[in-house]
Amino acid sequence: MAQRLDTRDRDFEARFTALLGEKRESAADVNDAVAKIIARVREEGDAALIDLTRQFDRLDLNETGIAVSADEVDAARAQVDDATFAALELANARILDHHSRQRPGDDRYTDDRGVDIGQRWTPVASAGLYVPGGTASYPSSVLMNAVPAKVAGVKRLVMVVPSRRGELNPLVLVAAKLAGVDEIYRIGGAQAVAALAFGTETIKPVVKIVGPGNAYVAAAKRQVFGQVGIDMVAGPSEVVVIADAENDPAWIAADLLAQAEHDAAAQSILITDDAAFADAVIEAVESQLATLPRAETARASWDDFGAVILVASLDEAPALADRLAPEHLEIATGNADELTAKVSDAGAIFVGRYTPEVIGDYVAGTNHVLPTARSARFASGLGVLDFMKRTSILKLDADSLKALGPSAMSLARAEGLEAHRRSVSIRLNLPE
Amino acid sequence: MAQRLDTRDRDFEARFTALLGEKRESAADVNDAVAKIIARVREEGDAALIDLTRQFDRLDLNETGIAVSADEVDAARAQVDDATFAALELANARILDHHSRQRPGDDRYTDDRGVDIGQRWTPVASAGLYVPGGTASYPSSVLMNAVPAKVAGVKRLVMVVPSRRGELNPLVLVAAKLAGVDEIYRIGGAQAVAALAFGTETIKPVVKIVGPGNAYVAAAKRQVFGQVGIDMVAGPSEVVVIADAENDPAWIAADLLAQAEHDAAAQSILITDDAAFADAVIEAVESQLATLPRAETARASWDDFGAVILVASLDEAPALADRLAPEHLEIATGNADELTAKVSDAGAIFVGRYTPEVIGDYVAGTNHVLPTARSARFASGLGVLDFMKRTSILKLDADSLKALGPSAMSLARAEGLEAHRRSVSIRLNLPE
Repeated sequence: MAQRLDTRDRDFEARFTALLGEKRESAADVNDAVAKIIARVREEGDAALIDLTRQFDRLDLNETGIAVSADEVDAARAQVDDATFAALELANARILDHHSRQRPGDDRYTDDRGVDIGQRWTPVASAGLYVPGGTASYPSSVLMNAVPAKVAGVKRLVMVVPSRRGELNPLVLVAAKLAGVDEIYRIGGAQAVAALAFGTETIKPVVKIVGPGNAYVAAAKRQVFGQVGIDMVAGPSEVVVIADAENDPAWIAADLLAQAEHDAAAQSILITDDAAFADAVIEAVESQLATLPRAETARASWDDFGAVILVASLDEAPALADRLAPEHLEIATGNADELTAKVSDAGAIFVGRYTPEVIGDYVAGTNHVLPTARSARFASGLGVLDFMKRTSILKLDADSLKALGPSAMSLARAEGLEAHRRSVSIRLNLPE
Repeated sequence: MAQRLDTRDRDFEARFTALLGEKRESAADVNDAVAKIIARVREEGDAALIDLTRQFDRLDLNETGIAVSADEVDAARAQVDDATFAALELANARILDHHSRQRPGDDRYTDDRGVDIGQRWTPVASAGLYVPGGTASYPSSVLMNAVPAKVAGVKRLVMVVPSRRGELNPLVLVAAKLAGVDEIYRIGGAQAVAALAFGTETIKPVVKIVGPGNAYVAAAKRQVFGQVGIDMVAGPSEVVVIADAENDPAWIAADLLAQAEHDAAAQSILITDDAAFADAVIEAVESQLATLPRAETARASWDDFGAVILVASLDEAPALADRLAPEHLEIATGNADELTAKVSDAGAIFVGRYTPEVIGDYVAGTNHVLPTARSARFASGLGVLDFMKRTSILKLDADSLKALGPSAMSLARAEGLEAHRRSVSIRLNLPE
């Protein structure tokens, strides 16, 4: 069962701090193995991909080809029932709509000294999207990673997905096509990340790599960072639910379990001001666990990392939420809007009793790739800006250089950088 | 002397690729030493800072205190001449003006399904700014790092700067006060980064750490990443200058040297379509080196990493610039605006013959903390967004949940996540 805390208990601060400091991930040290794989792919190219895929995925790429063909993608559609396809289409359209609003505007203007100044946003030239294989091969994640890239204007969007024994999730292929993925390769693991970063005979390198993966993929992304850009390395999923006693305990229990079923290291936390309600939620969790296919995972998460925090007043909740800085925050209270305005650090906030976090996982239009492990204190969810970069533009003429130049010369001298000073003075015909 | 390349030479592609692949930084492996320092600061707090500062900076913090007092900051003003102070004020005001335009807007709207959806930007709660000691203690860098944080709305901005044998650069203190830095501590190195990340008795921890530093500081930032956010770790500075023969060779030479004087590992590259002009620039570089205080550094940079690339036509230049993806790009040609529009990957572009890059270092208003080592392909200069994070906000009611819920349930089932499905179905009174 989840642990219980109460802000009125003497040991609350110590226990809450321990909760914050909990390490939920056992980061296997795979760095050496990954470094070797990357070096092999850099040296041997396709041959390394073929060999490593035979070894890890039990697949002979010589037979299938490295690339997934357009015909294969089209054929995948027939394997997807119409209701699921329609749901994917809806999700895709809504993610597209919402993310289109994130496109940044350029800004160029002439200031009061006559300086032509501004900033210009451009998409990264290419992006690679890692999609895990097996049960974690989620079509929703394909949409969440691919759509923002396409909205940003990325011309070449490359997907890699491991194909264990030749299997590929048709939903993943269908989602890739919906989202506009340009190339798909049936490779995974550190070798796929290396191929995206450095290229092989078949795969041209990309400039940015995003998407979730196991410890090998995460380590590979870290190691190729610099050569390419990467997104944040995501940890296990988490939800904090702030709920008053007016909720149906079963609804709240369902939300806690939706998070817990992801991963034994996921974390679900309830903050409430009503002890009886807390008891009822805990009871409902137990009862719902009985009929859950992924009960084993969900129970492990709930028992090991779940928590119920009792507060004297819900007014205490926003500050606790900020300290937890959760990936997902549900606020199911009568004054949900008011509490929402008081929270600063959360990846996404789900407001009111009719906004289960799961809506955000699939069809809300907002992104489900969100900062974990308290990084919402300083990081944001995936968005269009992650696939763009900003260039400063500056244009002076003789007059504006005359206006600003002497100040630059003063500061250059103060910093002991005489060549800096000279590059201005020489244009103004001034003594150095 | 700088190496010369010509796009018409047979070996151009090979030599240009080699230029792109050049490692200009010898990254000393200081990870173990840094890890020990961080562990000590976490364990011993202020006592570790005092001991390590005595050891590395030859300063007894027991005598001076760890914090720099407001009186010391005020006293620094008297040591700065009026012209330099006025230049700092101008720089501060212009950086403030330009960065104020980068403040992102919130976006909250009701979509066609009745979903209340949006995103909200909030500042990080606190930020730490590392300022190097000695000759690299630049007041301009204080402004460039501190002003965007304050524009973002960061309430608590903490500066650390090592004070070797008790010395502090008065310009740095004056710049900190101008920019609105809230706290200053006379510590540096990995111990300062550890103190910012984890806190000590005297220093409360921050949420994000920015600013340049040596190999120890860079390694410490990498090691505390996750506990706090960090900015990009900057490499040696670089400029690419695209210039036609209509320029004064001495002006262009001065710009190349302004970059080269920063660091023996800095890089200055000229791209031109005129061989005689290239010769004249190279000659002017030699002649200007003769009278440069930092000639030794500048010569090392120019000889080891400088390059002159001759092109058949300046139309080739934008593509070469994109491949180099330089921190700074000067375009001093008759058609500078046209070429500017064709470049995608550069930290900052300086357009026309009267826009030396040095203006951007100090008083333009744009930021001089820019992506190095070809990371302009995927990264941007420092800005207001680096001190903010975005939270998704979602609010459904019974009707909009009814509209979207069934699609979410379909996708949850398709992904094998029945608890996800249930958290929707239970609210709609639907069978699971």
